[in-house]
This record gives sequence, structure tokens and C-alpha cells, in this order.
Amino acid sequence: MKLASLKKGGRDGTLIVVNRGLTEFVTVTEVASTLQQAMDDWPNAAPRLNAVSEALNLGQCGDSQVLDYTALASPFPRAYEFVDGSAYLPHVERVRRARGAEVPESFYRDPLMYQGTSAGFLGPRDPVPVASEEYGIDFEAEVVVVTDDVPMATSADQAADHIQLVGLINDVSLRNLIPPELAKGFGFLHSKPRSALSPVLVTPDELGDAWRETVLHLPLRSWLNGERFGEPEAGVDMQFNFAQLVAHAARTRPLTAGSIVGSGTIANEDESLGASCLAERRMLEIIASGKPETPFMSFGDSIRIEMLDSQGASIFGAIEQVIEPYAG
Amino acid sequence: MKLASLKKGGRDGTLIVVNRGLTEFVTVTEVASTLQQAMDDWPNAAPRLNAVSEALNLGQCGDSQVLDYTALASPFPRAYEFVDGSAYLPHVERVRRARGAEVPESFYRDPLMYQGTSAGFLGPRDPVPVASEEYGIDFEAEVVVVTDDVPMATSADQAADHIQLVGLINDVSLRNLIPPELAKGFGFLHSKPRSALSPVLVTPDELGDAWRETVLHLPLRSWLNGERFGEPEAGVDMQFNFAQLVAHAARTRPLTAGSIVGSGTIANEDESLGASCLAERRMLEIIASGKPETPFMSFGDSIRIEMLDSQGASIFGAIEQVIEPYAG
Repeated sequence: MKLASLKKGGRDGTLIVVNRGLTEFVTVTEVASTLQQAMDDWPNAAPRLNAVSEALNLGQCGDSQVLDYTALASPFPRAYEFVDGSAYLPHVERVRRARGAEVPESFYRDPLMYQGTSAGFLGPRDPVPVASEEYGIDFEAEVVVVTDDVPMATSADQAADHIQLVGLINDVSLRNLIPPELAKGFGFLHSKPRSALSPVLVTPDELGDAWRETVLHLPLRSWLNGERFGEPEAGVDMQFNFAQLVAHAARTRPLTAGSIVGSGTIANEDESLGASCLAERRMLEIIASGKPETPFMSFGDSIRIEMLDSQGASIFGAIEQVIEPYAG
Repeated sequence: MKLASLKKGGRDGTLIVVNRGLTEFVTVTEVASTLQQAMDDWPNAAPRLNAVSEALNLGQCGDSQVLDYTALASPFPRAYEFVDGSAYLPHVERVRRARGAEVPESFYRDPLMYQGTSAGFLGPRDPVPVASEEYGIDFEAEVVVVTDDVPMATSADQAADHIQLVGLINDVSLRNLIPPELAKGFGFLHSKPRSALSPVLVTPDELGDAWRETVLHLPLRSWLNGERFGEPEAGVDMQFNFAQLVAHAARTRPLTAGSIVGSGTIANEDESLGASCLAERRMLEIIASGKPETPFMSFGDSIRIEMLDSQGASIFGAIEQVIEPYAG
């Protein structure tokens, strides 16, 4: 099934079930008012939401309405936990190679992961408000999963069973704030502001055989200002699968229902497929010619992130955002 | 007023108003079922909760009940944002001095702050489950504030008006996991598991003239296994006040209502007042004799953290926790 949230209804929006073709939806307040409420009671809510989804896909819901992406909030307008991995090591390798550094051998065994802000996610068509272009505005196209309650110190095998939803994220990054922030030693804060999830999140069964061993085997496509930017394969070069990332996140703490775990920027060894963020294209330019050619994003620039199934149909809907000066 | 949450009532517990003497409480479901609900509608909820508080303190609530600390959940059993500063530079200086490093001059102008997990807070009398004593189990006694909605890029002056509640936290730290984690460059994840807030959070007016310019001017007392461990002055050596910390947190993102901002471990230049964490005592031992004498916490060890007003009465109730082996 495919789940989303309308903006209307309060800080957590209103949970809806969306049809497979992303054209229609129904509200499901009789099951749960918000996606977080559904996650909080997932063993009971999921079968009931699935039944609605099946009826909707069969055209048997008389009260369905036309889906308008601009009326959508983030599926989770706010969440309790967002941790983001960096599972595609070609991304890490390029970033380090550009500054002449090696990738430590341990990075192939021990996932990189940071604690991100989960207090607010931008709607999938909301502008990205930024105070200054000097911050070095970038997007990062990633895959995310959402868990139910995960016990502390769970194994990767067990963690796989806790993955209930899959989606995309534009992990907004302020590149010029990253070096001074990481130099302080405490990780990202200012450099990772609010991000945007895809319009809908889907249960793994919607992905068919593209979801294997908790890896999503499809290209993730990005367009910058309407031009194709990259379409690297999310199923290639993912050093740690989502079960491993969830287990890593839960090593010393339980994860609460509705926790969001990100893959990190999708990147392949094969450079011909393009990148999923500007930083990486700039790194390749630095490696090739000594300096970056592509600028970071300016006010008014747009980013579109989407994943299509093997028939060319959009799975999660497209994230489409414009960078906007923050008015204060 | 003083606010807390009962464990009963679901994942977010049940909001209660506690009397000034911390002996009685009343439920306030007619105003809000949970503290997060109250924060979400603070301009309306606060005056109504205050009215209940005044009646309770005057003995005019017929339905008040006896407060049992063990029935309390964390005031926020889960929250959307927890960012923790490191505003007491004597703590930072000692940690660095022990390894022969200087404190960068910028640390006196630019707060250290990390994104912490907010997905679950332990109850104030709950044990702290840890999988291994080898992790180097430590407590950190700190002051926290809770904000209402804070706009992005707010000034410190404006931020002061968004501080609605004050409390304490035991920021549980797994010291032996910190060096390898920080060496990876992405900040804390495994080394900062779930923490515990104080039994109650209070509005700043409850602090009287001990709350000045968003600094809390009272000693914060810790006892380890029943022995006095430290009582440094929270009003001394705080390089950045809470208004500055909140503004720092909000530089590139808004803070949502119910965001928790921590002070970092309380520490004074005056070493005679003791410390607020084991790491710091061990650092002083290393500086004095070349090696630490005090071990980190073992299973069964207990920590008590409390702040008393000028008359010797407990303001927030005591955090009292025992380290417990995680059963899995």
C-alpha cells in the first residue's frame, strides 16, 4: 500500500491511503488520523489500511478523491527519530579523493551514520527556505525506510522484519557550513536543516522483486532545473543494506515506531550514471580539472527526485522543490 | 507551575500538574492529555494549566492525588528535537587538557552543540539499560530548557521569549564508544543513548531570581552510589546562556514546539565544587597523576541528580537511576 499525509488537520496532517497509480486517495480516520498514530499501533493498523488500499486499487472506494500533490504534507510532518547512513561508498570515496584522503578500511565494515533532525520535514512540493546562498545549497537524493518498534541491540536479520515502509528523501545540505561544523567534532547541526520526504511512502510488497535483501534495486533519478542530473542505481554499490543500517542505528538504543533510517546519497562506481548531489559532481570536476565548474544551488533553482518502476510508473511520486530566500 | 507525565496513558503518558512541594498532583485531560499536546497549543494551554497550578498550590483541588515518583514517565516520553550544547567551557578545557590539546579560541564565541536522540527519554526513576560495562558508562548532569515554536534564524534576544520550561537531564554517555565514533567525523550516535529528564519541568517563574538572563543560578548536585559527587554552580562559567543556545540551534531551521535544548555538563573553574560526570573527575586525576583512579559506572551503580532552591527544597525532583545489564 501507499501512504501519505494531507497538510490539513494539524501539525501531523491527515493520513491518507493513495492508489498504486498515485491519482486518487481516501482518508482513513476510522483507522488512524495520522501516520504516526498508525505506526504506533502498526500490527492493528496495517491490515486495516491494507484492506482500504486493496479496495481503492480495485476502484471499490466510492469516496475516493483526486490526488493533488501540492495539498500533501510530508508523510511524517514531524517524527521522533531520523538517522542517516552513508552506505554508498563511491560517494565517500570521491569526497575524500578530492581532498587527497583515503577511505579508512573500517568504513567497509562499520557504517557511517549521523543523527539528523526529525522535528520537521518539508512537504514534497514545498520550497526550501534558506537564509543565504553563501551556505552552499545542495540536495542529496536518497532512499529511506521507516521502522516499527525495534529492540535495542537487535541483529541485522531481526532488523529486516522491522522495516515497514520505504520512501525517498531530499536530504538538504548546506555544504559551506559542513567543514567548520565537522571540524568542531560534534557532527552536523546547521549544515543539515529540514529535509523533504517523497509524497508517499510504500510498503515493501509494492516494490515487488525490486526489493531484495532490504536493498531497492532501481535507479534514483534527479533533475536540476528540469535537466537530467543523475540516475545512479540504488541497488548497486550499497555497502550496507537497510537491515544492517537499522541494526547499526539500534545498537545502543531501541528505535521507536516511525523511526526513519536513510541510505545516504546514492552513488555508483560507474560515473556515467551521474550523481545524486551537486557536491559529488563538483568533486569529479575537481579531480578532473583541479576546480569545480558546477555551482551550488541559487534561489529559484529547482530539484526533482523520483524513482520509476520497471514499467516507467512513479513509485513514490516526485519530490519537486524550489530554493527560496528565507524572509525571516 | 510544575508539569510532569504519568507512565499510564500510552506512549506519551498522561500530563499532570504537580504542586510546588512535589507531593501532590492533578490530571488535566480537560486541557491536554500529554505535555506535547500542551506545547503544541501553548498560548492557550499555559494559562489554563497555570490556573490549575495556582488552585493546587492553594489546596483548592479536591481531586489531587499523592505524587509517586516511580509512577512518572519522563515529562516528554518522546520528543521531536533534542540538541545539547556544551556551554560550560571548564568541562571542555579539562577534557582537552588531559590529552594535551588547547581549546580553540572560536569555542568562546561559537557554541558546541550536537543533535541528540529525542525518540525516547527514560523515566526519572527508570534503570539505564546498557549491554556492556565495557562501553564506559557515565552520567552527565545538565540543565535543559523547552521551547515553543521558534522561527528559523531568530536572534538570542527573541529566543529568550521562547523558553517555556526548565528542567534537568541525565545525559547518559558511553565514554569508550566516543573516541572511535567522533573519529568517524559524523558526531555521536551509539555513544549517546537514551537519557532521562527530571521528574518535573517548571516554568521559569518558579525559579524566582535564580533565573536571570536565561541562566539558572543554583548548584546542580550529583550523588554517585549515595555519596556526594559534585555540586558545581550552574550560574557560573556558563559561556553561552540558554537564549544564545536556542538561537544557535535555530540558525538554519525552526524549532518545533516542545524542542529540548541542553546546557552541556555543568562544570566550574573552581574544582573544589566537584564535577557533574565521571569523565571530568577522571580527567583531573589524569592531569594530577597521569592516570584515572575512578572507574566508570558498573551494573548496579546508582546516580542521583537534584537541584535545591535557596530554602533547600527540591525544584525538579531527583533523577535517581541504576545501571542495569540489558537483557535483550
